[in-house]
Amino acid sequence: MKCRVCKAPAVIDVRRHNAAFCPDHFVTHCRDQVRRAIHDHDMMNPEDRVVVAVSGGKDSLALWDLLVDLGYHPDGVYLGLGIGDYSDDSADHARAYATEHDVTLHEIDLATEQGFTIPAAAAATHRAPCGACGLSKRHLLNRFALDHGYDTVATGHNLDDEAAVLLGNVLRWDTDYLARQHPVLPSAPGFARRIKPLVRLGERESAAYCVIRGIDYQVDECPMAAGNRHLYYKDVLNTLEQRSPGTKAAFLHGFLDHAHDRFTDHPDGDDPSAQLGRCAECGAPTTTEVCAFCRLQVRAAPRP
Amino acid sequence: MKCRVCKAPAVIDVRRHNAAFCPDHFVTHCRDQVRRAIHDHDMMNPEDRVVVAVSGGKDSLALWDLLVDLGYHPDGVYLGLGIGDYSDDSADHARAYATEHDVTLHEIDLATEQGFTIPAAAAATHRAPCGACGLSKRHLLNRFALDHGYDTVATGHNLDDEAAVLLGNVLRWDTDYLARQHPVLPSAPGFARRIKPLVRLGERESAAYCVIRGIDYQVDECPMAAGNRHLYYKDVLNTLEQRSPGTKAAFLHGFLDHAHDRFTDHPDGDDPSAQLGRCAECGAPTTTEVCAFCRLQVRAAPRP
Repeated sequence: MKCRVCKAPAVIDVRRHNAAFCPDHFVTHCRDQVRRAIHDHDMMNPEDRVVVAVSGGKDSLALWDLLVDLGYHPDGVYLGLGIGDYSDDSADHARAYATEHDVTLHEIDLATEQGFTIPAAAAATHRAPCGACGLSKRHLLNRFALDHGYDTVATGHNLDDEAAVLLGNVLRWDTDYLARQHPVLPSAPGFARRIKPLVRLGERESAAYCVIRGIDYQVDECPMAAGNRHLYYKDVLNTLEQRSPGTKAAFLHGFLDHAHDRFTDHPDGDDPSAQLGRCAECGAPTTTEVCAFCRLQVRAAPRP
Repeated sequence: MKCRVCKAPAVIDVRRHNAAFCPDHFVTHCRDQVRRAIHDHDMMNPEDRVVVAVSGGKDSLALWDLLVDLGYHPDGVYLGLGIGDYSDDSADHARAYATEHDVTLHEIDLATEQGFTIPAAAAATHRAPCGACGLSKRHLLNRFALDHGYDTVATGHNLDDEAAVLLGNVLRWDTDYLARQHPVLPSAPGFARRIKPLVRLGERESAAYCVIRGIDYQVDECPMAAGNRHLYYKDVLNTLEQRSPGTKAAFLHGFLDHAHDRFTDHPDGDDPSAQLGRCAECGAPTTTEVCAFCRLQVRAAPRP
């Protein structure tokens, strides 16, 4: 197996591109894919104030690293979810990266600042923890960006993540979610822009990128995610990809190129803020009197 | 396990309906699903001249039986594909059903009338046989209906078939195929109406229907289909259905209810005949000078 570019011994093959790469040209490949995603979807400009949502895992650390190399100047923000040792280790990886690369990492802690943890939220709501986790991340990272003058929140969602979400949305034909499934969600009143620059890289690639670049990351899967539907959809797509390399990329990018705009044509499809009021508790945009995050907080961290 | 309707011992459960049925009420369930499909999609009226495409398998024989019970008067047409013993056995099942139920079965034979068989077509084109088979069925059954004064060709495509086709179309976001994926394709110049009244019944249900009604059908899978993509997509959907009963029905009917019309809005989406000419050989509608079937025939049955 030889590098497609220089014919040196290759260390990784990317079957959907029918190519293998040496370490240096694999890094170039990753940069090219991120550059292309940013360009194709007009994600941002070098002067934008960008904050990367850093979990300490392979995707968010690779994203941070790649954006700096591509000439952007992102800071990072870590949200402590209170999931025992898993969260402690994740935070250590995020801090170590920031220290070693001399970049700025902000930290938010769910327990100390909001009075609850994800395990507590799952117990209080009697529901799978992933819903409360996603809601908390979206809400608090958005609020952080707005409060600290960032234009854009960049997240490490990769090709595998987005294809799995798309599969779930398509199996249910959830047209609202399909309308919002895009690597760029533009800014709107109460919303920072959200971008997903890794949408052209698989999770195997972001892991290999970290290994090649010497970035230590949280290797464990979140212990609370075991058995969730999203991981199951990833398995399904992996079996399809195994049989026919390129399936995931064709599925996701075919949707973005040929179908997404067919789901944004309903009256409020283009402007998610059009029919939104303000949360009576926190002021965030919401369709209800009190937003979903504040309602979660009341249940997960009841005041005495 | 007791019948949902009468509490007698049940012989089959339908997990997506969270119900089990005794033999009589299972037959009623099947009729209700077909009646509902015909009604919801405005497939036909009792006075229409309908011909069922009868393969000798469970789906087409169940369909024929159900349509007669629901007050329609369909004839059947069997297309001999020349796939050795499999085709011979299939024809026997179709003929036996017609004789026993005193209904009219027409027969077309690919080898004697068109000069080739599906195995010969696969060998001549060096491609998977299923493409040539589907093309031949669509072309010859449509021509048969037009030549013999039938308004409508009814086919036994069931929920599993249609969901698998939809999965393939969605994985590639093939927007032309998505526009045409519907249980009713209206008649147009050169095209009889095509309907799929089993679109609300799974293949396990059509098999059980045949067993309960004492209908002998071709049990074997087509020997030429082994390993094809369609069967693989069925497997994928079966694993999803196993985990979450109702997935297939939600996927297919969600598409029809909420997404299909988003794919028919291109200029020629509503009228497939709008940009069609006539085949120089056979006169069928086509976008090329000679239609795909006639081109297949030239390759598969070259004249000396």
